[in-house]
Amino acid sequence: MKLTILGCYSATPRTDTNPTSQVLEINNHMFLIDCGEGTQVEMRRNKIKFARIKHIFISHLHGDHFFGLVGLISTFRLLTRETDLHIYCPKGLKEVITLQMKLADSWTNYQLIFHELTSKTSELIFEDDKVEVYTIPLDHRVYTNGFLFKEKEGERHLDMPAVIEANIDMAYYRKLKQGFDVENKDGVLIDNKKVTTPPNPPKSYAFCSDTAYNESVIPIIKGVDVLYHESTFLEQHAKLAPQTKHSTAKEAALIAKKANVGTLILGHYSTRYDNLQDFKTEAQTIFKSVKLAGDGKRFNFD
Amino acid sequence: MKLTILGCYSATPRTDTNPTSQVLEINNHMFLIDCGEGTQVEMRRNKIKFARIKHIFISHLHGDHFFGLVGLISTFRLLTRETDLHIYCPKGLKEVITLQMKLADSWTNYQLIFHELTSKTSELIFEDDKVEVYTIPLDHRVYTNGFLFKEKEGERHLDMPAVIEANIDMAYYRKLKQGFDVENKDGVLIDNKKVTTPPNPPKSYAFCSDTAYNESVIPIIKGVDVLYHESTFLEQHAKLAPQTKHSTAKEAALIAKKANVGTLILGHYSTRYDNLQDFKTEAQTIFKSVKLAGDGKRFNFD
Repeated sequence: MKLTILGCYSATPRTDTNPTSQVLEINNHMFLIDCGEGTQVEMRRNKIKFARIKHIFISHLHGDHFFGLVGLISTFRLLTRETDLHIYCPKGLKEVITLQMKLADSWTNYQLIFHELTSKTSELIFEDDKVEVYTIPLDHRVYTNGFLFKEKEGERHLDMPAVIEANIDMAYYRKLKQGFDVENKDGVLIDNKKVTTPPNPPKSYAFCSDTAYNESVIPIIKGVDVLYHESTFLEQHAKLAPQTKHSTAKEAALIAKKANVGTLILGHYSTRYDNLQDFKTEAQTIFKSVKLAGDGKRFNFD
Repeated sequence: MKLTILGCYSATPRTDTNPTSQVLEINNHMFLIDCGEGTQVEMRRNKIKFARIKHIFISHLHGDHFFGLVGLISTFRLLTRETDLHIYCPKGLKEVITLQMKLADSWTNYQLIFHELTSKTSELIFEDDKVEVYTIPLDHRVYTNGFLFKEKEGERHLDMPAVIEANIDMAYYRKLKQGFDVENKDGVLIDNKKVTTPPNPPKSYAFCSDTAYNESVIPIIKGVDVLYHESTFLEQHAKLAPQTKHSTAKEAALIAKKANVGTLILGHYSTRYDNLQDFKTEAQTIFKSVKLAGDGKRFNFD
């Protein structure tokens, strides 16, 4: 599981900071999460292969989280994309995009499939044989979801010396990986656990931006390996957090602690602060394993 | 008269090229012309004062000419702008912008005034005591206007030694600048031309992007000091120009020659070309005074 931060600042794009966007690489998927203005350029800068993006998740319809989407959709067309593109987003975004395409007398050569969200409780919005994605309802000024990405349990690993010793025909390897006991070449039933080792523990990632301090996310994100939680403010501006429905670094840490997550990544910094290290310092008074998002930063959780 | 090119490439923003946007400084106005994705960042990079932009001209509703507008409008709000903002654009853009503001539950603290254009003949769309702006109907795949910016004739200059010699009271200086004959202190009528020199010749700038080769613009732009004309293609791809309703460098030069303009600036290059010098070389086979637009380039025509 790898995470590339394309942008992690709030409000407006500037010469040296980008609004929210990130790419999560999990079990061969490349999921794009949020898409502020300039995301397509940051994708190029960070060498994200455009063709590998098949699912885009938009948390909410504030501009710093989606103004780059219409341009990315247009660029996909210019690159003669043919693969379907799925967009998971609050209701309304489809109208914005289709209106702009209509005015430009434009179209996409590929299927553009909107999954418009309205539920206020967590729901499964994507699933295949390897990964599940759930919404995380957040508490912001407009309808907002975070997203929980969970690997499914993978296959067991063959303990090859033991498999060979047990005289098992290669035709049964698939069954072994799936956890079944099988008969060996002599007709003897072999206990799966004696010739295989457990699958890798499934990884999970929760993205929570933008939100006021909101304990109702805790049961949804409980025990995730990595939590990205917004921290727009430091303590000195703590008053602004509830007013603007954002969080402080300490509040993000408190959520991380109560949800017992592995690692907390902070982001969505207000551009008023020069020293990001203060976010880490304040968060670590509550929760130890804190990392700072940064534009162009790449985290590897394998 | 100064022109700052924020972006001059066609199609999609990339790490090293920006879509169309430019700022024309003329007679104390700062006019923003087109607003592709990333324009607000390029404005910062080129130190364009946001507060000085009061009029934005959008040629047409292809994304590379307006996808940056909604973000700029939002940023103006975050910067607590209070000054009116006028947007001259094809019909439809107001709906796009207001829909996005509605979805974001957002607003502007300033008056946002759309002047939606539908006319297929040139019309006066802005005028004050110093400058006039006219549309230049272009021939593109969707409804498109270029824009002609014309200084009005300024005041005559006082020839001070002559004025003093003629014994004219200071109270009449204003009248002299306006071209009137005035009586001197001895009651003698003084011929204006004997004590003043002509005003600076008014400057003019025509912006023509995007368009197929289109001679109908010639009478509108006749004799302008500076013409920015799109040149998406070189001769080797001349076939694509009429198909896509764009121009070649040679076609831009032919318009410049027939309209007898002072200087031609080329831009809106297809990103397929590495060597921009070829655009100049091809254009100069037809018209000598050619300059190449470049992102971040500043032209001074004073």
